[in-house]
Amino acid sequence: MGVIIDGCPAGLKFDTELIKKDLERRKPGQSRITTGRQEDEEFDVHSGVFEGLTTGAPIGITIRNKDQKSKDYSHIAETFRPSHADFTYQTKYGVRDFRGGGRSSARETVNWVIGGAIAKMLLHEYGMEIQAFVSGVGELELEKDYKELDLSSAEENIVRCPDPDMAEKMIEHISKIKKGGDTVGGRISCVIRNTPVGLGEPVFNKLHASLGQAMLSINAVKGFEYGSGFAGSMMKGSEHNDIITSSKGTVSTSTNYSGGIQGGISNGEDIYFRVAFKPVATLMKDQESIDVKGNKTTVQGKGRHDPCVVPRAVPIVEALAALVICDFVLLSQSTKLGASSDSI
Amino acid sequence: MGVIIDGCPAGLKFDTELIKKDLERRKPGQSRITTGRQEDEEFDVHSGVFEGLTTGAPIGITIRNKDQKSKDYSHIAETFRPSHADFTYQTKYGVRDFRGGGRSSARETVNWVIGGAIAKMLLHEYGMEIQAFVSGVGELELEKDYKELDLSSAEENIVRCPDPDMAEKMIEHISKIKKGGDTVGGRISCVIRNTPVGLGEPVFNKLHASLGQAMLSINAVKGFEYGSGFAGSMMKGSEHNDIITSSKGTVSTSTNYSGGIQGGISNGEDIYFRVAFKPVATLMKDQESIDVKGNKTTVQGKGRHDPCVVPRAVPIVEALAALVICDFVLLSQSTKLGASSDSI
Amino acid sequence: MGVIIDGCPAGLKFDTELIKKDLERRKPGQSRITTGRQEDEEFDVHSGVFEGLTTGAPIGITIRNKDQKSKDYSHIAETFRPSHADFTYQTKYGVRDFRGGGRSSARETVNWVIGGAIAKMLLHEYGMEIQAFVSGVGELELEKDYKELDLSSAEENIVRCPDPDMAEKMIEHISKIKKGGDTVGGRISCVIRNTPVGLGEPVFNKLHASLGQAMLSINAVKGFEYGSGFAGSMMKGSEHNDIITSSKGTVSTSTNYSGGIQGGISNGEDIYFRVAFKPVATLMKDQESIDVKGNKTTVQGKGRHDPCVVPRAVPIVEALAALVICDFVLLSQSTKLGASSDSI
Amino acid sequence: MGVIIDGCPAGLKFDTELIKKDLERRKPGQSRITTGRQEDEEFDVHSGVFEGLTTGAPIGITIRNKDQKSKDYSHIAETFRPSHADFTYQTKYGVRDFRGGGRSSARETVNWVIGGAIAKMLLHEYGMEIQAFVSGVGELELEKDYKELDLSSAEENIVRCPDPDMAEKMIEHISKIKKGGDTVGGRISCVIRNTPVGLGEPVFNKLHASLGQAMLSINAVKGFEYGSGFAGSMMKGSEHNDIITSSKGTVSTSTNYSGGIQGGISNGEDIYFRVAFKPVATLMKDQESIDVKGNKTTVQGKGRHDPCVVPRAVPIVEALAALVICDFVLLSQSTKLGASSDSI
Repeated sequence: MGVIIDGCPAGLKFDTELIKKDLERRKPGQSRITTGRQEDEEFDVHSGVFEGLTTGAPIGITIRNKDQKSKDYSHIAETFRPSHADFTYQTKYGVRDFRGGGRSSARETVNWVIGGAIAKMLLHEYGMEIQAFVSGVGELELEKDYKELDLSSAEENIVRCPDPDMAEKMIEHISKIKKGGDTVGGRISCVIRNTPVGLGEPVFNKLHASLGQAMLSINAVKGFEYGSGFAGSMMKGSEHNDIITSSKGTVSTSTNYSGGIQGGISNGEDIYFRVAFKPVATLMKDQESIDVKGNKTTVQGKGRHDPCVVPRAVPIVEALAALVICDFVLLSQSTKLGASSDSI
Repeated sequence: MGVIIDGCPAGLKFDTELIKKDLERRKPGQSRITTGRQEDEEFDVHSGVFEGLTTGAPIGITIRNKDQKSKDYSHIAETFRPSHADFTYQTKYGVRDFRGGGRSSARETVNWVIGGAIAKMLLHEYGMEIQAFVSGVGELELEKDYKELDLSSAEENIVRCPDPDMAEKMIEHISKIKKGGDTVGGRISCVIRNTPVGLGEPVFNKLHASLGQAMLSINAVKGFEYGSGFAGSMMKGSEHNDIITSSKGTVSTSTNYSGGIQGGISNGEDIYFRVAFKPVATLMKDQESIDVKGNKTTVQGKGRHDPCVVPRAVPIVEALAALVICDFVLLSQSTKLGASSDSI
Repeated sequence: MGVIIDGCPAGLKFDTELIKKDLERRKPGQSRITTGRQEDEEFDVHSGVFEGLTTGAPIGITIRNKDQKSKDYSHIAETFRPSHADFTYQTKYGVRDFRGGGRSSARETVNWVIGGAIAKMLLHEYGMEIQAFVSGVGELELEKDYKELDLSSAEENIVRCPDPDMAEKMIEHISKIKKGGDTVGGRISCVIRNTPVGLGEPVFNKLHASLGQAMLSINAVKGFEYGSGFAGSMMKGSEHNDIITSSKGTVSTSTNYSGGIQGGISNGEDIYFRVAFKPVATLMKDQESIDVKGNKTTVQGKGRHDPCVVPRAVPIVEALAALVICDFVLLSQSTKLGASSDSI
Repeated sequence: MGVIIDGCPAGLKFDTELIKKDLERRKPGQSRITTGRQEDEEFDVHSGVFEGLTTGAPIGITIRNKDQKSKDYSHIAETFRPSHADFTYQTKYGVRDFRGGGRSSARETVNWVIGGAIAKMLLHEYGMEIQAFVSGVGELELEKDYKELDLSSAEENIVRCPDPDMAEKMIEHISKIKKGGDTVGGRISCVIRNTPVGLGEPVFNKLHASLGQAMLSINAVKGFEYGSGFAGSMMKGSEHNDIITSSKGTVSTSTNYSGGIQGGISNGEDIYFRVAFKPVATLMKDQESIDVKGNKTTVQGKGRHDPCVVPRAVPIVEALAALVICDFVLLSQSTKLGASSDSI
């Protein structure tokens, strides 16, 4: 498997450890509430980096999966699995490569995590930080405001929820679901701090619209909201407006229902958004379906899969957010005469 | 104001009446629950249409607003209004054209409604139909499944909700909010019928991701979900999977939590999604804010604005959905060898 | 007719006079060796400029042709003219808008001249200058090196050749051709001065490749060469290499067969290139052809057209060159960490 | 090294032998008039092909160079070679990867030849054929019209000229140049047969403009002309116009100065164009230059390089032509209502 990251500016210090760390966070088999499948990714950087700095050339990376076994895919070859992309790919293309999931497989997200880690390297140059965490599993919901929590503590438990009590409940719930051969959905929240004012482009490339498209590209995602989101649509204007204040030359807002974005452009407050993931479609239970000829068949419950996708999707959400923010940082450098990348 | 629609295939019958009808549905001043501002758009088609057929050239259209008055914008020139894009535009560009809202104004959506009407002309050639409707105003929520409702009846009331009882409640609620000088948010649902299997592209141009980006581009939108959405993220896989069946060569699913899309590609079921709109930021109440120099000021409650944006946003949601679907119809024609636009 | 120029940075001083001046240089009927057709363009700027500065929004401009007459196009409607795009448009699109000014008409270049004038405004901020001139008419060829000539003097004669003697010969030749009801081709050379090092992108967006595509987009262009061009392909490496020298920190080359571009990237020397235009296909002589049904017919020699396109194409070559250079100036601002638009 | 070819329709028969054959034609060390360097490319197809058919997924290919030796690049690291991209890359990016095979190296064209071979597979489905050949070396020029020659015979001699007598002269000339430690430029012509009417898009994506950009992307290319080219710019309109005739429903032209393209769109005649290559900049002679600090230095004449690039560039010209034509074939499928890929 391989990925090409194009458009990275030259002269960026390349931090291989950051890539490794985020791959570890995404890795299957990392805990008792993820898939038991073991995949240990090693990657090689073939281009775009020289003596520890990016060169401005596309960064080409290949990924080796150390313990890939040749598998038996005959059951997928002949069957359309429920709520998978088997039927749509077969019909759209006429040809379907059923081995290892192909482009509709979540293995694709390894590439995104690598790209996102490189994007983070650039964002760190500007002091920006991205932190995602699990804020919901099934009907369990983290109600606390993120400002009351130490978000970095999310990495201290296997479900990646920054509230230890809620984390415990979520882990217990996923364990129970797993035991029953079933799966469950969940929510991830993400906060981006220290963004400059001015990221995002009017009309069709608004910052939140691009974040939305990126998040909706992740396998199993069913919804996206930013700032006050769906709950905000129940509010009144007099409650929802973010009052603007100024202190010592710094403009800020007293509330942040806008989620750090006004008119599609960052306003300097924290950017935050939330992403909904459906339950994994592969079950340990038998399910009715049809085969490629249209005859009834049974999809057997077997294989190794995640009972809940959100713990491992946290670095994926961060990666795509980082890539989107990076694009707008680079775009912003040609926005006005005399702009410079130093001031963004 | 003007718009250029590029990429429309040649030979399409151009239906001016459809454009007029959708502009009427978006028009300010259309009922007692919208803004009292009167705008009567007339448009001229300058290129791309010849003897009633599209020519394959870009379709250039200008729009005249018949009763535009020269207004006094001095209060906007000097002030940053809360939860508007004044501050972000000023900071991003250094120059801000404060007249008539500019690119962050919802007047921009006139262009989209025109483009969407042309997209609908193409989709009608393939038998596809798009119907949006208001499914929530403030805390009022239309709980009924859309399949139990006659969606076309949404156009029979001024709030555009296909359930007459709920419509009545919504109208009453908006009227009350308006009387109080306040505003309220809401939700719009959209259903697309008779889509072929195969629309949408893998990885970063999934059908729902593109729909999401389009919807999040609409002014005041805070969230997007498709199929089971956020509620689906609380479910278990055994409840959520859509069982596939086949009858007389036609493949369908017994439920449609997938919202007509699997792996980012349409599966032939109804496509449906939901969009959340925040309350309008312009109020009839005074609000604290700062002026462009950072000094405290008061934004006065005046002017004419919508107490709730969703009744007029229904044709905008449809328009952007139509444009997205069109793009994928055209893209799908080069997907496989021997494909033709007749079969999509 | 209208044009939208997108991507112009905010804060640029908008120079309406520069647009007018370049439109004058392109205008039909400007001298006895151009078409006798009179067109007097007036233009309105609708968006993207506020109080004399660009705002970062798309600049929308419409153009009115003051003395457009309703014409009789029936002869074009029914006939395929030799070496025109009638047959190819008809076949490609099935529908053909035969009224003057379609997309294959050179009237389209009015838009480009306007866009190019805006691009020049930006390039002037960086001190860059673009000067095109006629270097060949039919078999008449300006052999002198452009460095021996005062290029600005090209504007002092109606054929736009900076060598007065050669200009005289060219004017005489075109006059003779015109009298005979015929047309003749020619060549335009272009020099871009004071470009910074680093414009152009590797592989498929090399600076000269983008200039080539732009020039080949101009109606009637048949060829493009830069630096030593076709003549250079007859040389030996030991003659052709540009020796690099350095003086007081400034790197330059002793010759400039490279035309200011090495590896697709500007090296700070003058960029120069040459463009070949075929003779205008509309003649004052009768020509055999076929009608839309495939029957033989005669295309009559009538109407007003240019006997030689190059005098009026000089500002068009400059305009497209300016737009290409501008794109690369803006792109270069995200090339390396710490780059700024001040230093490019 | 690796390449990703995206956008290839599903269901195309994948012909590995065609890739191998074109790589052989590009290979260094293939004859006594090319570089003595030996490179034997082997490639692996990682994605996009399944059971001999393309799947619609990106086709990912990596290339191994079997006898790559670790080389001493210190002389390049410290020096700016004349008429190479060393200085421009160093200045543009601040970082320069001086090890062989960077993005300005002609090794990049291995990727293009592979992509082009896949494009040829698609074009063969429509019966199109592309044949390039050497038509000039230094001052030696193949004057004969290509229609008098058997173009496929170009592959029967090491210089790839379809005229045996001229081929002999060219080989002799290159051998002599090589012996003198020098290099020489040349010209390649290319003919595309059996193209349908309608390929190419108006305004800025004209067929010949895209071919021009592609050809100008090839290392060492200095010029591009199509149809009558620069010579055509010396002609009169009455000589140059291609008279249209019709016979049994087929429209054709009696001459083809247009090179098969009118208004940027193919007209069904042979498409032909010509490309000029400068002499290779690496010589076997010492040359003056400067080092990276600006001090005078001598670039020593050593290493293995081609005395003339055109014999090996023939498959590269074909490859890029094939890719351009493919893009327009795919684009054309959404041009008009009811179009199908069967009829293009």
